[in-house]
Amino acid sequence: MKLEFSKIYPITDTSLSTLSLPEQVAEMAAGGAVLIQLREKHASARQFFDSARKALHVAQANGVRLIINDRSDIAMALNADGVHLGQHDLSPVHARRLLGEQAIIGYSTHSLSQAMEAVKLPIDYLAFGPIFPTSTKEDPDPVVGLKVLADVKEIAGTLPLIAIGGIDETNLAAVLAAGADSAAMIRTILADRDGIEQKMRSLLSIAAGHQVGNV
Amino acid sequence: MKLEFSKIYPITDTSLSTLSLPEQVAEMAAGGAVLIQLREKHASARQFFDSARKALHVAQANGVRLIINDRSDIAMALNADGVHLGQHDLSPVHARRLLGEQAIIGYSTHSLSQAMEAVKLPIDYLAFGPIFPTSTKEDPDPVVGLKVLADVKEIAGTLPLIAIGGIDETNLAAVLAAGADSAAMIRTILADRDGIEQKMRSLLSIAAGHQVGNV
Repeated sequence: MKLEFSKIYPITDTSLSTLSLPEQVAEMAAGGAVLIQLREKHASARQFFDSARKALHVAQANGVRLIINDRSDIAMALNADGVHLGQHDLSPVHARRLLGEQAIIGYSTHSLSQAMEAVKLPIDYLAFGPIFPTSTKEDPDPVVGLKVLADVKEIAGTLPLIAIGGIDETNLAAVLAAGADSAAMIRTILADRDGIEQKMRSLLSIAAGHQVGNV
Repeated sequence: MKLEFSKIYPITDTSLSTLSLPEQVAEMAAGGAVLIQLREKHASARQFFDSARKALHVAQANGVRLIINDRSDIAMALNADGVHLGQHDLSPVHARRLLGEQAIIGYSTHSLSQAMEAVKLPIDYLAFGPIFPTSTKEDPDPVVGLKVLADVKEIAGTLPLIAIGGIDETNLAAVLAAGADSAAMIRTILADRDGIEQKMRSLLSIAAGHQVGNV
């Protein structure tokens, strides 16, 4: 499956917003998101399941696809659209066997060598980062920068490449110009005082500007 | 499925032993265990998967069944014998849908009301505790004691009842006498200086003594 991405890939986080997961998804969808990753690092599995179920209802009502971070069992139990896996999660090979061919499986990589391994795996998109310094992850991998992002684009070929880590309106155009098909963001979207929906619109507008070449 | 239990239900823990999960399983099996729960609270999902895979090989070579703590996705990916779920994990209803009828699903409860809810769920055994004070869990539920254990036995009926929490050779017979079909132990088995295998044998011998009434 060739996955179509919007230029902005928003990720939820309840530690960066007072809104619940379903509320975050509703705002992201209203702002134009088409694919959202549901991430909740501090809740129990049951709490995550319960809020993910509500978030999935919101997503489906808005025609948005929802990806569950880490937990293939929760994704399966909810019949969510897929999972996003990190280097320390269940491997994409095993997740694919569990979730089937129709599921979207994304995979985080943090170096050229990880990206080269990743393209052999049964994944639908490759995430790469952190492109810039980020405070969202507690123990981030080393910053990779735009030059290596461009190298990873070569490796990824037609596999969608999602850049992540420290991306905001000031560097979004450069990230897309370097070869990213989409830019994943957490803090930039959730922590904006004008609200998530407005921020999504603003970012999509900047990204569209890049597309028509006027950056 | 009516599940047959040995009187002792050992649970692994790498923070209480220098042995790896496969090594712990090997020793437990050598000491007479027939069903083992694999618990690893501090490893990543991928690390847990990797050591659980090795542990499952050891278990199968010894005719022992292996239950995975918490993660239904890991249990499915390994084709393990089942999962053990807590109150904060994915619910037994959803785990059953994922794992199928043949899987063993165990469920932890910590009060009479939780036990009354649990017997309505699609589970194969009911765990109840902590019976006595325990230092194995970081944030244990209140101690329930032997009297409430006996009340839960009434609630459980023919569903196997596993007592857990602070059980050792000094109180094992009392726990079984109160109605537990089996006693789950972590620290008592793993932290014994004579080794896991010897401790398993010793505990099974005490439990057998209870069975023939000479305690």
